[in-house]
Amino acid sequence: MNNFIWHNPTAVLFGKGSVSKLADYLQAANIKTVLLLYGGKSVFKCGAYSQVTDMLTKLGIAFPEINDIKPNPRIDKVREAVARIKASKVDAVMPIGGGSVFDTAKAVAAGTFYDGDVWDLFEKKAQVKKALPIYGVLTVSATASEVNGISVIMNPEREFKTSLEHQLLYPAVSVIDPEFQYSLPEKQTIYGGVDIIAHALERLLDGDEDSEFMDDQGYALVRNMLRIIPELIEDPKNYSARCEYAWAASVAHSGFLACGRESRGDFSSHKLGHSLGMLFDIAHGATLSVVMPAWARHVYKYNPVPFARLAENVFDIYDGSDEDKALEAIEALEDFFREINAPTTLRELNVKEDDIERLTKNAAKNLPFGALKHIDEQDINDIYNLAY
Amino acid sequence: MNNFIWHNPTAVLFGKGSVSKLADYLQAANIKTVLLLYGGKSVFKCGAYSQVTDMLTKLGIAFPEINDIKPNPRIDKVREAVARIKASKVDAVMPIGGGSVFDTAKAVAAGTFYDGDVWDLFEKKAQVKKALPIYGVLTVSATASEVNGISVIMNPEREFKTSLEHQLLYPAVSVIDPEFQYSLPEKQTIYGGVDIIAHALERLLDGDEDSEFMDDQGYALVRNMLRIIPELIEDPKNYSARCEYAWAASVAHSGFLACGRESRGDFSSHKLGHSLGMLFDIAHGATLSVVMPAWARHVYKYNPVPFARLAENVFDIYDGSDEDKALEAIEALEDFFREINAPTTLRELNVKEDDIERLTKNAAKNLPFGALKHIDEQDINDIYNLAY
Repeated sequence: MNNFIWHNPTAVLFGKGSVSKLADYLQAANIKTVLLLYGGKSVFKCGAYSQVTDMLTKLGIAFPEINDIKPNPRIDKVREAVARIKASKVDAVMPIGGGSVFDTAKAVAAGTFYDGDVWDLFEKKAQVKKALPIYGVLTVSATASEVNGISVIMNPEREFKTSLEHQLLYPAVSVIDPEFQYSLPEKQTIYGGVDIIAHALERLLDGDEDSEFMDDQGYALVRNMLRIIPELIEDPKNYSARCEYAWAASVAHSGFLACGRESRGDFSSHKLGHSLGMLFDIAHGATLSVVMPAWARHVYKYNPVPFARLAENVFDIYDGSDEDKALEAIEALEDFFREINAPTTLRELNVKEDDIERLTKNAAKNLPFGALKHIDEQDINDIYNLAY
Repeated sequence: MNNFIWHNPTAVLFGKGSVSKLADYLQAANIKTVLLLYGGKSVFKCGAYSQVTDMLTKLGIAFPEINDIKPNPRIDKVREAVARIKASKVDAVMPIGGGSVFDTAKAVAAGTFYDGDVWDLFEKKAQVKKALPIYGVLTVSATASEVNGISVIMNPEREFKTSLEHQLLYPAVSVIDPEFQYSLPEKQTIYGGVDIIAHALERLLDGDEDSEFMDDQGYALVRNMLRIIPELIEDPKNYSARCEYAWAASVAHSGFLACGRESRGDFSSHKLGHSLGMLFDIAHGATLSVVMPAWARHVYKYNPVPFARLAENVFDIYDGSDEDKALEAIEALEDFFREINAPTTLRELNVKEDDIERLTKNAAKNLPFGALKHIDEQDINDIYNLAY
């Protein structure tokens, strides 16, 4: 195992009715005003908005709001919220929603204490020095933004979707009430599920095989997700499966699975997916079910071992050479994505062959990346072509 | 899954040479004086003491010391340290050692801000309100005291060994450098390994089967420990295995495996083991390899299912009824303990049949306990007799 620092300070309040427990934390921190952030109607439909605002009202906490935060969240919303906070005092940021809303909250929390344009922090022109505390209520499990210090934001003017990571951006408290996810559109359960699997695979397939113990934690997570996603498609109100899905989502990208790995994960598929999200506004999970198998087919020959281990430990494939097993595992993964109706080709996303040049240029902005294979611009082009 | 709160604020600095990283945390917190706590010669032998004191000296941090902390740590040492701190200002407590030293540090950290006798906190006559921060350096992995808020202390006058758990008792920072464990006596690697396995089994065998995902995390941990312990007996300086052992130890009792379980774990075996530690000063791990199989034989018939799942997922036992599989799993566990030369009977610990009455009375002080089966005094007696 490689050296690592594990420090995840977020308090997770997990389970139905857990919004009520948030009150203690807000009072202990003497919070008087929070900036509420959310997307659209779903927070009303699932009951989260009313539970949260009832609690805040009872506690006498003021809650100015900014809403209409979109999937693939944009820097202009972040700027709007930062400007609002700079104009009137706010003690904390409170996202209600999924990864996009949490990611926006983190950018806002950091931007509040930075004098220049908040996008500078994403372009690494400036460092996060201080951040407002974040008290969040999760309504869509997938990105694990509720338990990490990562914010992924899109800048349309720059045609750039990229991430900022900092220890100060971990939420102070995150409420995960799986019942809020009963009313999610099926597509979101599917895409979220793909994202969760991808977070584990970015680690398991990074080429570092020095800890069987940690690999086994990852395999167990993926194996369970292959069971849980179909259970939820069958019955979206299966509380037990919603809980497992939500907690697996958090575990998958809390930093835990990265402990001891030489890289923090490969993340080529995420980077290539971000360009699809940027240029065509495609849901994050849908970009991953397309890109990840193509990435795998392109890189497995450089080191088939992690793919062969995945074959054995997740898909019960034991016969043949490591290369054979690797290919079978990639096929099994793709088959699973098809089974749950996740897209596996760029064509299904209505991306044209002509767009691949533009996609390649866009993704190349994020270079260098990749751990199992260090990716260059030719690789990017090859992978998008394979995905086509 | 049941509702839970997951909040583990400890920063873990993991890997060889990590003591050096501790400096940043001490400086950021403006620490000027630490009370150094340790046991005996092992901290000199393994190099931890010199690395830590060199660093403290360089930083200009004063470090008064209290040493000679024993396995099965005693309340008198805690009182001695608390008195010392109350007489002269100290900013933090710094254990260098294993679970006993960390547990002592936690009791001291809490006792410093309590006006009465610190034992009151263990008898729940008073509540922890405030605690000194703990910056620890681990030299023996087993109890996971480096990543939890639990302190287990022995009070010989009361003939009582019991635990105190509080959110304020999580170490602020724990350094885990697996190289410090190269020089451990083989027995300690064996007993620590038993303790780590027991921490996972206390959860897996608590009768709560509502999260296959979390169960699989636990099974993976136990399966890997069955591989890692013999690897370390074979080669105590196998860095990779030392890392996996150390990190598995932390994960096993960090609270992670308890997430979503109805109980926080069964812990009957731990309670029955504590009485053996109390009355006969036996190493914690050795009490567990004796008690746990006896406990299992006594209770499995009340609910064989978790034992049967353990048989399938850890020992590859698939044939027969759940009861058959359960019994085979218990035998396989006991066989493994014998293979690694851990004791499996009270006789091997030189405990006499006549002592069982006294043991039973002592363990009964900790009632009520048990989750898979709620234990009563008769159960305690039966289990010790089975262990004989």
